[in-house]
Parts: sequence; structure tokens; C-alpha cells
Amino acid sequence: MAKQTVGIPRGTRDFMPHEMIKRNYIFHIIKSTFEQFGFMPIETPSMENLSTLMGKYGEEGDRLLFKVLNSGDFTQNTDFTASPNKIAAAICEKGLRYDLTVPFARFVVQHRNELSFPFKRYQVQPVWRADRPQKGRYREFYQCDADVIGSDSLLNEVELILLIDSVFQKLDLSVNILINNRKILSGIAQYIGCEDKITDITVAIDKMDKIGLEKVNEELKSKNISQEAIEKLQPVICLEGNNMEKLEKLSDILIHSQTGMKGIEECREILSYFNDIHIQNQIHLDLTLARGLNYYTGTIFEVKSTQLPMGSITGGGRYDNLTGIFGLDNMSGVGISFGIERIFDIWSELHADEQPADGGTQILFINFGNKEERYALHAAMQLRALNIKAEVYPENVKIGKQIKYADSKQIPYVIMAGEEEMKAGKYLLKNMLTRNQTLVNFEDIKPIVEQ
Amino acid sequence: MAKQTVGIPRGTRDFMPHEMIKRNYIFHIIKSTFEQFGFMPIETPSMENLSTLMGKYGEEGDRLLFKVLNSGDFTQNTDFTASPNKIAAAICEKGLRYDLTVPFARFVVQHRNELSFPFKRYQVQPVWRADRPQKGRYREFYQCDADVIGSDSLLNEVELILLIDSVFQKLDLSVNILINNRKILSGIAQYIGCEDKITDITVAIDKMDKIGLEKVNEELKSKNISQEAIEKLQPVICLEGNNMEKLEKLSDILIHSQTGMKGIEECREILSYFNDIHIQNQIHLDLTLARGLNYYTGTIFEVKSTQLPMGSITGGGRYDNLTGIFGLDNMSGVGISFGIERIFDIWSELHADEQPADGGTQILFINFGNKEERYALHAAMQLRALNIKAEVYPENVKIGKQIKYADSKQIPYVIMAGEEEMKAGKYLLKNMLTRNQTLVNFEDIKPIVEQ
Repeated sequence: MAKQTVGIPRGTRDFMPHEMIKRNYIFHIIKSTFEQFGFMPIETPSMENLSTLMGKYGEEGDRLLFKVLNSGDFTQNTDFTASPNKIAAAICEKGLRYDLTVPFARFVVQHRNELSFPFKRYQVQPVWRADRPQKGRYREFYQCDADVIGSDSLLNEVELILLIDSVFQKLDLSVNILINNRKILSGIAQYIGCEDKITDITVAIDKMDKIGLEKVNEELKSKNISQEAIEKLQPVICLEGNNMEKLEKLSDILIHSQTGMKGIEECREILSYFNDIHIQNQIHLDLTLARGLNYYTGTIFEVKSTQLPMGSITGGGRYDNLTGIFGLDNMSGVGISFGIERIFDIWSELHADEQPADGGTQILFINFGNKEERYALHAAMQLRALNIKAEVYPENVKIGKQIKYADSKQIPYVIMAGEEEMKAGKYLLKNMLTRNQTLVNFEDIKPIVEQ
Repeated sequence: MAKQTVGIPRGTRDFMPHEMIKRNYIFHIIKSTFEQFGFMPIETPSMENLSTLMGKYGEEGDRLLFKVLNSGDFTQNTDFTASPNKIAAAICEKGLRYDLTVPFARFVVQHRNELSFPFKRYQVQPVWRADRPQKGRYREFYQCDADVIGSDSLLNEVELILLIDSVFQKLDLSVNILINNRKILSGIAQYIGCEDKITDITVAIDKMDKIGLEKVNEELKSKNISQEAIEKLQPVICLEGNNMEKLEKLSDILIHSQTGMKGIEECREILSYFNDIHIQNQIHLDLTLARGLNYYTGTIFEVKSTQLPMGSITGGGRYDNLTGIFGLDNMSGVGISFGIERIFDIWSELHADEQPADGGTQILFINFGNKEERYALHAAMQLRALNIKAEVYPENVKIGKQIKYADSKQIPYVIMAGEEEMKAGKYLLKNMLTRNQTLVNFEDIKPIVEQ
């Protein structure tokens, strides 16, 4: 066979060991926090039937689904003179999942008789989108979702805020937790007399922090929102004060909107829990927060770093009828999704020199030849049984080369045990940072390495 | 939108929480053992260019690759009157990975200047094969591989055997570790005068334990191996005795085959390490062990359960030129792959009643209403900070329903704290197994739950 050039598809990535160690550290914090809050792991297949996925993400979403060619003879009975969409539908039954939310809804409906509700699940798996690749946007990336489904209690929202706070505390990242409520947004649309244009309004005001008030107003105008309505909207979305003050003013404005007042009430209730529960990060009521996904019906969340300018790094909200499309009505749920790729970027930048505690190999045994190698292997096996990560360099090559290997793998300790050490039953332990060497007994190794 | 039936593609699976807990437990043991032995994690993309995958797994393998339809207008410049294979090549540039080995070879070649050799990596990711689904055979399943590349030292083989032993010890599964050497198989083919038929011979004798000697001989005959050669082969593959006795006899037989003698020498060397290193599971030299993949060139391994009849649950071997096809020659490596799906099946059957220690929620707080809920939430938050998995039932519904929820989630403890307990600053802790209740202080909860 001819030799060939190597590469990977555009928008995909290889992860090197030093990246994986950091990623695993972040995944571990998120997963273990999910479990501390009672969420249980599930997994769904990478491929779903296209009938499950199509039509759930809008026209743009359908276009961005990766479709998998039917195996066997896909050309049979296919009319290749049809439109590309029709051909694709004929030759592809399956697609790669686009997010974890639709598969989760499908999962809940399919297994509803095996699950006990409220069902709290978390799911950490890759998703695929045929988006144009650019900096920070990939065609394969992980999502980390937690949802409670089958309970409309606001305690679930409170728990998710506590969970968000806990995760970012553990990651030593400072964030703002923004909340709003879709019912408040509906109330505002009612108040300005544009109830039918709620989607256009939310899409526009959601861009406030990116494009500013003036451009938002231009966009509203372009969507045929009247000048009068736009003017009526201004003081509402520009309300100032702390959360309770904002809600106070808002309840005067939305007094005639039952939906709006319900939204305010929900916000008040959620925030009231934090009067006597201390969290580290701040919660801000942000009336411009809308979130694009139109299955949200109540509280919506978004999290932003206070340390680095970057978009939303976590988001979520309550939905009242996610499973309706699959035939199961009246299942209210609320969920969040950690934007792991952005969190990884922020964490890496702010903790550039930090190596997660649970990193790579802790000790390398230098290989001095066949007899010494066996002495080293014995010690390595005993250390591994004590949960120390130890390796023996597999070849008896120049010591400089072996030391270089330890350095390149950032192994903090090296043990040199030659004939003399073997005779004495000792180990020459070298600290690779200070370059100091000490002759030690086996029992001394673990405490030194772990200190 | 119309409601629709739900389901997932044939040969794929949803994993429920109770399965995930067991799977994660097994994955954790394998991954942490890999790390104890100095292997570092990497990940590669789910999609590879089809040019990377095609032609690496034989004709059958090419057929079993899942191909991903090009995004955008895939019909442009496509000649739909061509053969299905040609059409597929025109409309699909990418495919889902079929195993972790070829992507690893591609990874090593692509990143050779960033890696330090010997490079020890592990990789745990799903792979996809368009195989006909049947019991125990899925179209999406995980592989767990560890490889050392860039070292031909036999110490690597020894370390992999130690690693295999360590993993199955921790899983409390008893196995036989079978080893053989491709060079010995070559020597045997030379000895019977069929050097050119080595593949046919190895494929046939590999089936010995499944179909028996007679059928093996029939297959050899059908491949035009002469009666004389078959007769000469019998005593060799039926050699009896312990490992050293077999090698002794074999070295008399293969005395004129340089390659065969080299294989014997390698086996001896590897086995010699285990004269003074104790492992729990037994190593058996199995001269019928061949392993289908023809990139193996030296030692080959296979692991079988001694407790349940099932095929190979782990396998691997040494390869001398895996990266050659991608333009990097002279990289010897050795690796193993844990058959996680079969290991999961065996473990589940033998440990049916066992719940991994690191399972689900440990305490459920019963919800008695708004005030009590906040008392519970405070305690739950404090317990989580102590690394106890605690949840508060989100709704104030009948206690029976809440207890049923705890039972269905197999939560071992429930806390009931109503007005009286709140006044006294106490918690009524119920053991869900014994159904006993005790009134305790906060400090008592953790020790009781963890005992």
C-alpha cells in the first residue's frame, strides 16, 4: 500500500496527554458534583434515528446534522434525480446526535416505565455539528448536562444554582450566575403590546451585552416592532438596582400581566432561598437574558466568567413539554449544561502552571540492566499496590536519555538503583525539581513522593 | 408536529443509571491501573478521514465502516450512475472509527515531534462497526486500549501481563493469561514446509478450542495444506506439559528455524520474570493461539475467564510496523485491549448482587414543606461538602411516595426532619434496609452513612 499523508477531519481534535489530564480533572469535578446532588449517569447512542433528530433544532439545525450512510447497498431503490435533501433522506436513516437534550427526551419517553420520577440524570458525551469550524468552535465537542424531569418544584432551580456555584468554587473560577424567567419576558411582550412578536423580541434583547442598546433597537425596528413599543421597552430592560429592587419595580410595570407576575413570583421564591444559604458566586437577575432555545418556559440560567471576557460558559432553564413531541405530555423539567470546552479554555488560561493533583506518573525507575530492572520492577509493583503511579524505563539505555524522558513526561521523582543500592536494599531517590538525591528505604518512598 | 414512535438504531444501546454505575466502576479500575503503570490518556476524534481507515481492516472491514455523508451539497459533481462503492467514496469523506489501533497509529505519526518515546498511551472510547447485530455484538461499543510504542524491550510485555493480572485481581475475576509468539508460529510453518501458508495455518489452528482438532485439520486440508504437513503439525500444536517443558520440546523441533528459535527465546525471557514475581492468575503458553490481526509480529496475548465460558476478554500483542503505512517505519510497539463489554457481562453475572461502593445517592431528605425543606437543604449542602451524596426530595408530597422513590433508587438512608426535629436541631435517620430509625445530631450522620 502506498504511504499516505496523515490528518484528521476539519473541526475535530486529537487530545494529548497533558490536555487529557486537565480535561479529566474538570470532568471529574463536574461529574462528582452531579452525583453529590443526586444526579445519576446515563448514556445514549452516538447515532440516533434521523426521525428522532430532524425538525428539533430548526432548519439551520437540520442542515448541521451529520448523517450516516446506510450500510449495505444504499443505492437500491434510490431516486438520484431527486433533490439533495430527498436523496439524503433515502440513503441515510441515522445521524450523529446534535446535543444531549433531544436524545434525553427520547430516552425518557422510551423508558418511562422503567424510570422513577422525578428522574435526575446527568450525561457527559460528545455531540457533533457540521458547523463551519473556527477558533473555539468544533465539529465534535463534549456536553455535560444535568436535568431533573417530572417535578415542577422551584427547589430544583435552587439546587441547580447551588450545583453551579459548587462546581465553579471547586474549579477555583469566579463567575456571575445570571437568571431570568421566560414568563417575565412574555409579560414584557404583553406590556408593550407585542405578544405575538415574543420570539423576535427575545432574540433581539438577548444580544444586548454583545451589540448594545442602540443596535438592539435597530433590530427590533427591522422586525416591525413599533417605535412606541420600543420606547415602552427601554425602561424595562434597563431597570437598575439589586435583584429585589428590580423585581419590585417590575411588578409595578407588569401588574396587568398574569404570566409576567407569575414569573416575578417564581424569581422571588428562588432568590429567597439565598437569603440564608451562602454561596460564593453572585446571582444577578438579568432581564435581557433570553436564551435562544424556544423550549424554555420558566426560569432560565446563564453563567459568565468574571475573570475573562468570554460568552456563556453554562446555561439552562425550565421546559414544560420537552417530551411532548415524543408523545409524553405534562413532564416539566429543568436542566443545565456546562460548556466544558470554554470552561477548559478559561481554566487552562487562569491555571496555566497548575498540574492537577491526579496527574501522570509519579516515579520513574531508571533501567540499569537486566538484574537491576527486576529489582526496580519489584519496587514498582509494591508502589502501585500503594496507589503510587510508577514506571520502569523499559530499556537499558544511557541514563541521560532516561532522565530526559522523565523531564518530558514531567515525572517528579526518579529512582536510581544499581548494584550497590540493591546490595543494601536501598533506593537513590532524585527530586527532579530540586535535582537533590537521597538514599532511602522502600518505606520512605511513598511519604516523600506524596508530600 | 406529529407525535412519533421512539427507538434507537439497531445494535445500539441506552445505558440506564444502574448499568452506568457498574460500567463506570469497571472503567475506573482499568483506567486507574493503566495510570499506575505509567500509561497516559489520549483521545482521537470519532470521525477519521476515510483515507485513514480504508484498506486497514481487510475487505470485510471496509464494508463494516460507517461512512458519514459530506455536509453541504454532496450531490455536486457526483456521478450517480457509478458503482455503490464509487458513489460512497464521492459523497463521504469521513467515517466513524472502527477500532482505536489505526487512529493511534495515525496519531503517533502525526504528532511524532511532540511525543517522547517510548510513548505509553491509553485510550477508552467507543468504536462503531456496521456488523449484523446479535447477542453480545453491538454496532457501538467501547474499547480500552493501552500501548507502548517505540521500545522493543520485552519488559513491556512483562508489564502488560502484570497489568492484566492487576486489573482482573481488582475486579475479583479469575482468568487464564494465554501467550504465544508469532515467530514461533512462523517457525512451525517453516518446520512443516508451508512457510507461504502461514496465514491459512494460523487462522485454522486459532479455532482449535472452538471447533476441535478434527475440524482444524479439515480446514487445513481445504487450504491445500498437504497431508504430510498436517501430520507433521499435529504433535507440535498438541504439545503437553508446563510452559517450560513445552518450550524445551519445541526448541528441539524448531532447531533449524532461526525465527522460531527467536520466538522461543522471547517467550522464555518473558516467563522468567515470573519465577520471582508472584501474580494471581496463571500464564499458559498456548501454541494454538494465533490472533487474527496480521500486524502482530512477536508476542501475542489473550485472556479467558476461568469462571464462565466466554471467548477472549482481553487480547493484544507486539507489532513491528504499525505506523509504517502512515510513513513512519521502525516503530516497534506492544499493546493490549480490554474487551470491556464482555468483562461487563461476566462481572455483572458473577457480582449480580453487588453494588459498587461508589454508587448513587446515599441520603434522601424527605420534604415536609417549605420551612422543613430549607432545614433539609442546609444539611444536604453540608453533607455534600463532606463528600456525601445527598438529595432533597423536591416536592412536598405524601411520605409514602417519597420513600418509594428512595427504594427505587436504592438509596440506603432517608432523613425525616419535621418541626420537632428542627426545634431540637436533630435528624431522624432511617436505615432503608433494616427500616430502623434513630434520632441523631448532624455530626453523627456521616459516620453512620459511611460505615
